[in-house]
Amino acid sequence: MSTEPLAAVTVTAVTRTIYPQPFAQVVAGRSKRRLGDHFGLGNFGVNLTELAPGAASALLHHHTRQDEFIYVVAGTPTLMLDDREYLLQPGDCCGFKAGNGIGHQLINKSAAPASYLEIGDRSAGDLPFYPNDDLHVELNADGNYAIAHKDGRPY
Amino acid sequence: MSTEPLAAVTVTAVTRTIYPQPFAQVVAGRSKRRLGDHFGLGNFGVNLTELAPGAASALLHHHTRQDEFIYVVAGTPTLMLDDREYLLQPGDCCGFKAGNGIGHQLINKSAAPASYLEIGDRSAGDLPFYPNDDLHVELNADGNYAIAHKDGRPY
Repeated sequence: MSTEPLAAVTVTAVTRTIYPQPFAQVVAGRSKRRLGDHFGLGNFGVNLTELAPGAASALLHHHTRQDEFIYVVAGTPTLMLDDREYLLQPGDCCGFKAGNGIGHQLINKSAAPASYLEIGDRSAGDLPFYPNDDLHVELNADGNYAIAHKDGRPY
Repeated sequence: MSTEPLAAVTVTAVTRTIYPQPFAQVVAGRSKRRLGDHFGLGNFGVNLTELAPGAASALLHHHTRQDEFIYVVAGTPTLMLDDREYLLQPGDCCGFKAGNGIGHQLINKSAAPASYLEIGDRSAGDLPFYPNDDLHVELNADGNYAIAHKDGRPY
């Protein structure tokens, strides 16, 4: 873990996802630089996330306990709030308050890469909810995710 | 509280400080747009903070429980980590892990405004510590700050 400042784009980008297929395909082309982890932060995460043309940040989802916030650094990603669309530009931001039940997702519908900072806290007992997709995700006590259909069958 | 995205610079900027004189003078020229509060976020704060030439973010300080993170949006603020200086530029970032005892402060030593995003969680029981200044700050149960000299005398 580091304590010295650096250019955010020099932090290693990772592309892994916990989503099973076919959902993993939605976030193909998404990469995250885990800036908060780089500095050993424990209470919240900060990622510099890039979406290639066509890529999405996640499935449309909302959280029970985790607040989230995004700030656009480059490009023109589209923000979905349930079925409403907002075309964003650099300097735009949005917050997603835990428990408000509004689904959110960023999709890069443009022909150029888009990048943004995303912040989320690490409140215990948080559950994400995916209103449009047959996916149930839970964080087990061992720190691993349990990934299942909504009827409980594992993927 | 809002749920719709907007340009961060359109959020109202505030300049108030909890510091008594002479410390309030250090942050004269600092203004904060409370982006997280605009969206009703409770678990962490996100501010777009601007420093006029000569202004500082805060006194040099560190926290017992609150993680902090900054990302430079414009200008060239100088980051102090104890007595070390780092000249930052847009796209640079740094994280300040709770409890590591490293004092941090941003000072705009340039002739142009500098702005950055700052994120801090709201962990209960946090205490800031000011290694270079005779200031003790504590958050009371009523949500107000108690501001005192280090020997307990109030300002």
